[in-house]
Order: sequence, then structure tokens, then C-alpha cells
Amino acid sequence: MDALAPATGMNILTKAARVAARVLAVSPTDQRDAALRAAANALRAQTAEILEANARDVAASQANAAFRDRLTLDQARVEAMAKGLEEIAELPDPLRRVLSEWTRPNGLLIRRVAVPIGVIGMIYESRPNVGADAAGLCIKSGNAVILRGGSESFHSARAIQKAIEEGLRAVHLPEACVQIVPDTDRAYVATMLDAAGMIDLIIPRGGKSLVERVQREARVPVLAHAEGLCHTYIDARANPDMARQILANAKMRRTGICGATETLLIDEAIAPSLLPTLIDDLSKLGCAFVVDERARAIRPDLPLANAQDFSTEWLDAKLSVAVVDGVEQALAHIAHHGSGHTEAIITEDAETAEKFLNGTDSAVVMWNASTQFCDGGEFGFGAEIGISTGKLHARGPVGLEQLTTFRYEVRGNGQIRA
Amino acid sequence: MDALAPATGMNILTKAARVAARVLAVSPTDQRDAALRAAANALRAQTAEILEANARDVAASQANAAFRDRLTLDQARVEAMAKGLEEIAELPDPLRRVLSEWTRPNGLLIRRVAVPIGVIGMIYESRPNVGADAAGLCIKSGNAVILRGGSESFHSARAIQKAIEEGLRAVHLPEACVQIVPDTDRAYVATMLDAAGMIDLIIPRGGKSLVERVQREARVPVLAHAEGLCHTYIDARANPDMARQILANAKMRRTGICGATETLLIDEAIAPSLLPTLIDDLSKLGCAFVVDERARAIRPDLPLANAQDFSTEWLDAKLSVAVVDGVEQALAHIAHHGSGHTEAIITEDAETAEKFLNGTDSAVVMWNASTQFCDGGEFGFGAEIGISTGKLHARGPVGLEQLTTFRYEVRGNGQIRA
Repeated sequence: MDALAPATGMNILTKAARVAARVLAVSPTDQRDAALRAAANALRAQTAEILEANARDVAASQANAAFRDRLTLDQARVEAMAKGLEEIAELPDPLRRVLSEWTRPNGLLIRRVAVPIGVIGMIYESRPNVGADAAGLCIKSGNAVILRGGSESFHSARAIQKAIEEGLRAVHLPEACVQIVPDTDRAYVATMLDAAGMIDLIIPRGGKSLVERVQREARVPVLAHAEGLCHTYIDARANPDMARQILANAKMRRTGICGATETLLIDEAIAPSLLPTLIDDLSKLGCAFVVDERARAIRPDLPLANAQDFSTEWLDAKLSVAVVDGVEQALAHIAHHGSGHTEAIITEDAETAEKFLNGTDSAVVMWNASTQFCDGGEFGFGAEIGISTGKLHARGPVGLEQLTTFRYEVRGNGQIRA
Repeated sequence: MDALAPATGMNILTKAARVAARVLAVSPTDQRDAALRAAANALRAQTAEILEANARDVAASQANAAFRDRLTLDQARVEAMAKGLEEIAELPDPLRRVLSEWTRPNGLLIRRVAVPIGVIGMIYESRPNVGADAAGLCIKSGNAVILRGGSESFHSARAIQKAIEEGLRAVHLPEACVQIVPDTDRAYVATMLDAAGMIDLIIPRGGKSLVERVQREARVPVLAHAEGLCHTYIDARANPDMARQILANAKMRRTGICGATETLLIDEAIAPSLLPTLIDDLSKLGCAFVVDERARAIRPDLPLANAQDFSTEWLDAKLSVAVVDGVEQALAHIAHHGSGHTEAIITEDAETAEKFLNGTDSAVVMWNASTQFCDGGEFGFGAEIGISTGKLHARGPVGLEQLTTFRYEVRGNGQIRA
């Protein structure tokens, strides 16, 4: 394939994917589940080959230690991949769910029924298991998938792909249900972004620059979030102990995930008494701060935030802090600086809480809970292919159900329209 | 505004729309309904001015008679616009519907709740009432809308807009909930298509070249159908009388709508006996035909179809006919030639019917009913802003509910993530 122009190569992949998607769309639940289980066993059986291919990738990698850590596979990580596929097999089939049903006065029975989206393009960086997880979710939801991982994990991806193909073959599903881009030429990415009508949805997972590039250039619909600039607002009528516990978790449980709180907004009525305690709590956990003028008046030892800070996703042990005049100003701050991801309010006042929940157009809004709950597993979806901050089709954690669309089925007995 | 560059002008419009959208999103049902009723009354009160503006447009129009007919308003058409707004006011509020709700083992209550999409851009041709209908649906569903009608209906659109603004003012909703592009410069269309992040969704309504241009150039998500190349497949086990009745309606009830059947597929087992009758039925109604070799063997008097014909949407009293070997070949034909819109099977065999319903990825599939039922009113949606053949977010007739998206609301009492 290396001799083909990328556009031609992508054409071949997408044509095969479209045919495979039609087969998957009508495949029985059992067949898809059996494919996942067979693929899981193939991963286990081929662990040695997968780790060998991965060792080649790691040896060739020139990246920093954190990156190489994400790139490296070991027996435990391969086993986790296999288990992941088996867990997806256990989930309920999202296809053919009847989403709604009604009968018209003329007797027509109309149903809205869940069906696969079609062909999904997955563009991801560094962690090889993202490809396996995505393949599992796509097979289960009846979608064919084209995987393009980072060039640094190319051999790992290909070894994993062999195992998945074995799973598909074992149940007589087309191997083209899951394909990897067989060339590290970056031009292939552009052909994926351009494949409107051949690829139905692109899901980019990785750093901000990858996601933003995809969102900017894709002519295919994109499911993604570029940023998780999440806010926790502590209201005047917050329970202080609850506020302390939630904020510590929302900021520091894991600082590198999109659901980590990046900015604390705190009502001016409670700030003098509570803010110093919150700062001390988080300092003990190793957190740094940038604060606005009003917060600095309470804690002059802390550095002043600049204009950009409140629009910055730290993905680190660092918190922006602003004192606000009540929920309205908190909402105004979020409208100005937020990324549409997840916002939380801590309060005992139900009316204020509802005002907050209704007053922002982020994908996920929370009352008295940690923003770190924005996760498919925590939502009960069983698995998650990513998180979306877009407005349409799917928002928040994207699980199996969101990898489907619907069609209308109209059943009559001869009705004609007047 | 004429002195501003279109990009600057659109920036002003979208900024105002975004602010208005935030107000609409939290507005009570009653307020939006009252705005619609006040706008309806304003339309009636301003009929003379609207008709005068329309007369200017018609006089200046250089188009053909059919086009000018679509452009022309009269008292009855203005009254229909007003009634349309009142009917939308009567529909249930699509906002804040609880789409699903569940409690997690840790006690978190999670809800998926319907919310407005945000700012919608409507690009349409010729019929001025499309703008009024769209404004009504957008207001009701909490979306701000920017309307760009054809330049030939500019004065009509502006006069209608005055009435709608009066309705918004009467209930203290921002006038920017509904804005028209105040300049006929075609460059404004490009700025709308480019307004990713400022406009959330674009809905084009008009001819194929407009829709295809929008789909091709927009960086904003688009809800549209370019073509309605609908099929009716008559199976070997069809009830012949039902088949005759349905086909006549599906082709000839109204030939210019997207739900009109353009191609008849008929099983080879029933074709010899039934096809001549169907041809005669439709001929009496004024229909013309192009047929494949196998159909021509049955009716040699009919012209032979060429390679393009089965991929052509006639929008006229013309039907393409092909004889097929059963439902599988019918599905293969549809997969090759269809536009993803609406496909129907006529049969008494439930198993064959289910195979057909499952075997295509069109937005709407029908059993024993006329494809002309693909319509928001017929589906019971009360109103329709257009029909979509896209894969995501909304498919088929797009009514009020599809002009919403959702958010997750998570209610806790202090939960933190492990």
C-alpha cells in the first residue's frame, strides 16, 4: 500500500468499511459478542508478539518519559485490553432499541429505532489500547471503524489488529469491520478528515492541538472535546465540609483528566471564612494557585492571575480562583471562560442550584458532586469512547448508545396520504 | 450595515444571537408561547405592509412563473403564516423534557434533559413563509435564529421580520432571538457557513445546488437533505390492490416533494402480472416512465432507462422502473442509487418486510405505506423545519424535539470519586 497515494489508499479502506458496516448493521447480537470474546482470547494468545512489536515502538521512540510510559505495553496492560473487550461483550446490545413508538390516527405505527452510525474514523495518540477499546465499542454498536493511531505506536497497533482480525474471522464477520491505516504517512489523516460521505463520524483522542486540528479541518462530523475547563462554584449557602471534600477531589484526584476542576469560583459571602481553609487543604495536596484581586485580598500570599489564566486548562496541580457575587456572576464567568464541558455548584439552596443547572449550556452540570464524575464508567455506560463538548448528537461521556443513531420505521396496512 | 464587511456584519449578528439564545434557554414556556401569539397578531395587523413589500419583490423578480408563484404572498398566505405560529404555540414545550433518569450505586441521580441547541442559521430560497415558520419553531424550542432568505424575497422577509420583532417585544424577549441578514450580498452566506462556534447548526432549504453548496462548504453542522430519491419495492407477496393504491399515491400525489417515489422496484415473480396494470394506472394519471431491460421485456412500449436514470430524482410525473430478484436485489439497488431518504416495501410477508426494514440505512423505512408520509405533520410532530438525511442528531422529518439537544444533570449530596 505504500506505493499508493494516501487518497487512493483511504478510498480502498472506506469502501471496504462501508461494505463491512452493512454486514455489521444486521448482525445478531451473539455474533458481535462472540467476535469480542474471540478477539480477547486472541490478544492473550498473542501477548508475546504484541509485546515484541511494542518493544520496537518504544525503542524507536524519542519522546519524553511520560509519553513513553503511555506508549509502553506490558502483560497486565494486554490483559486489561482483553478484559475490556469481554466487558463490552457483556453490555446490553444498543442496536434495535425502540426509542419511541406511537400510532397515528390513520393507523400508521411509527417507531424510532436505534441503528449504527456506519463508519467511524478514530484518530488517536500514544496509548495503543485506545485502538483496542475503540474497536470493541464500534463492533458492539455495529459500526465499522478505521483506526489511525500515532506513528510512534504503529507496530503495536498492527499487532493488536492481528488479534482483532482473528476474532472477526472466528465468527465470520468481515475483517474490514476494523481496519488500521497501514501507513504512517501523515497525509492519511487529511484524507480521513476529508472523507465526507464515506466516513460518518470522526473521533479524535489526544492532545489539544490534535483535536483542534481535526475540528478545524474535518469535513466529516467530529465528536470531541478540545478542552475540559471545568468550574466548581461554591455558593454562599454551601456546606463547608462538603465543599472542602468535593473541591479536593474535583481538583486533585487526577489532575490530568478533562473532568478535573480548573477554576474555583467562590461566593464573596463565604470566601473570607472558607477560602483560606480550601487553599490550605489543597496546598497540603501539592496544589498551586493563581487568584483574582478579590481572592488576593483574602490571601495576599498567592500570585495574581493574569487575563489568560481563567481561560487556561492547567491539567496539573494548579487552580485558578475567583471571588464572585453570587450565582449570576458565577454563570457569567463560566459563559465567558468555559469550554462547555462540566460545571458544578456546591450549595444547600435548591433554588440557587436549579438556577445554576439551567443557566449554563455545558454538556454536564452538577450539584453537590465532584466534576471528576464526568466519565462513561461513572455514568453507568459501561465504557466510553471519549467525551464530547459539541452541541449535537452526543454530549458528555460517549458510550455505546451514543455510537448509534436512529431511523424511523413506519408500519401500515395500505395507508395512502390524503 | 451595508458599509460593513460581511464577516463583521455576521459577527455582530451572531454575538447578539448568542446573548438572545441564553435568555431564550431559560425563558418560561408561557413567555415563548405568548411571543408566538403576539407575532401572529402582528402579522395580521401588518398584512397591508407585508403585501406591499412583497409586491415590490415580485415586480422586481425576473424569474419564471412557478418561482414567482412561490414568491407571491396574498392575504390567505399571510393568514396561514399567522395560524402556523399559533399552532406552534399550542404544541408541547420540547425544553426541559427529562429524556432519561437513573440513580448510580453511589447515590448520584443522573438525568438527561432536553435543552436548546443554541443559534440556528436558516438559509432558504423563494418562499417567504419558510422564514416565519422557522422563526416560530426556533423560538418555541428556545433557539435564536438568523434567517437568510433569497435576495428576491428580501423586502418580504424584512416586513415579516417587523411583525415577529413586535411579538418578541410584547413579551420582553430580545429582538435578536430572530434576526434577518440585512443585506442581499451573497458573501453573507459564506460567513454563515464559516461561523463555527457562533452558529451551532445550519438548515438549508431550497434546491439541490443550494443544499449541496452548504453541505460542501459549511464548517458548521448542517441538517439537510440534498435529494429524496425514494424507492417503493413491490415484493412477490404483495397484495396487488394495495400495491396499486400505494404506488399511485407514492408517485403522483405530489410529484415535487422529496417524499415522492422516484423508482419502482418490482419482484420478477409478480412483475409479469402486475407491472402492466401499474403502468396503466400511472399513465392515466399522466406519469411517464424509463424502465430497465427486464421491465421492457414486459412492456416493450416503454423507453429504456440509461445508467444515470436510476440515480436521478425526477421531482416530476416520471418514474424509473426496475425488475429485481427479490428483496436482496432490491436492497442492493437502493444501496447503490438511494439518497438515504425514504424507502418502502409492499408485501404480506412479515419476514421479508423485516429484512427490508433492517437492510437499508435510509432515514425512514416503510412497510405497506406511501413514501409520501415522510413529513413532520404526518408523523405527528405538529410542524417541521425540514427533512434530514444525515446520520447524526436528527434524521427524517425535523420537528420541535429535534431542534433540541440535551445535557446531563447530576445531583448528589457530596459524592466524591474514588
